[in-house]
Amino acid sequence: MKIILIGASGTIGSQLAGAFEMEHDIIRVGSKSGDIQADISNPASIEKLFRQVKSFDAVISAAGAAYFGPWDSTTDKEYRIGIDSKLMGQINLVLIGKQYINPNGSFTLTSGILSHDPVLGGSNASVTNGGINSFVRAASIELKNGVRINAVSPNVLEDSPQYFPFFPGEIPVKGKDVVAAYVKSVLGAGTGKVIEVH
Amino acid sequence: MKIILIGASGTIGSQLAGAFEMEHDIIRVGSKSGDIQADISNPASIEKLFRQVKSFDAVISAAGAAYFGPWDSTTDKEYRIGIDSKLMGQINLVLIGKQYINPNGSFTLTSGILSHDPVLGGSNASVTNGGINSFVRAASIELKNGVRINAVSPNVLEDSPQYFPFFPGEIPVKGKDVVAAYVKSVLGAGTGKVIEVH
Repeated sequence: MKIILIGASGTIGSQLAGAFEMEHDIIRVGSKSGDIQADISNPASIEKLFRQVKSFDAVISAAGAAYFGPWDSTTDKEYRIGIDSKLMGQINLVLIGKQYINPNGSFTLTSGILSHDPVLGGSNASVTNGGINSFVRAASIELKNGVRINAVSPNVLEDSPQYFPFFPGEIPVKGKDVVAAYVKSVLGAGTGKVIEVH
Repeated sequence: MKIILIGASGTIGSQLAGAFEMEHDIIRVGSKSGDIQADISNPASIEKLFRQVKSFDAVISAAGAAYFGPWDSTTDKEYRIGIDSKLMGQINLVLIGKQYINPNGSFTLTSGILSHDPVLGGSNASVTNGGINSFVRAASIELKNGVRINAVSPNVLEDSPQYFPFFPGEIPVKGKDVVAAYVKSVLGAGTGKVIEVH
């Protein structure tokens, strides 16, 4: 299977690359590294990416920024970070990628626990994650030719200690359990699902 | 209680005005009508609205557009309609309004059933509704001075027959039941809740 992995050098992405490359062709995409560079907050950059790869069976997105910081000083400007990157960036991957993906292919996006279990300072991530979860449900009934779509929604990652102060009392999830959720999405048969990891 | 009602001339808004004005002071806000005109997709217009009203106890938003139409031709541009209006417009009402609202006041936003039960052509509304539901959960743990926030999430309205073709087999909800959900949010004690009407 030929898999485009967006955010391949990230905390989740690098583990996904290691796991999937044993049996599949992985095209690593990053904003500054990887086999191909692309900026998911720019639809023209996404279009260029898919035109370059041409034929593929799966897109995994483990990319997209969201703003973390004190809510009292958070304005429209900070919310747009998550809106433009993690929310619309991942949505545009699907809106554009669906024109290029092989029949029976799949899209796997990344949301996160904050959609339904918020933490102080994380409301921008809450909004983007909630939007992504609803998007995969909506897109799953629109996609044609057997193409599927799911989201993986992890709790804070064991490998992201910089986020621990935002998540008091949460038990961080192991990388291998997060990888398993993406494997379930790509190699399983489900669609329109939010696969939680916690 | 002094209540700012955004979208006062709309299908839901006009029924809310009629119900709440019996016992409360209602300030009707519309994009082109009402006591005060404001454009919720423009943060500067929202700021002007709250500065003009000064002191108030509740904000009800029954406003915000989202795109409905064939998914195959839906691009970033159409998604931005719901993102800028129903999603960020309502979020900005809270981000700005929290600086002006009286202690123990409340915000009530509007989402809708499509967040978790999508229909063909409605994915932009799904995304905005899911984002709003997650936002009220996140904002409820951030707001200070006893200020509360909830979302009302109705099914298609009996009074909006133009949307019936998008919702095959759905039983439309009565205006009085939708009004009751907003009354529960404004006069009840709950916060961070998504009040479903179906």
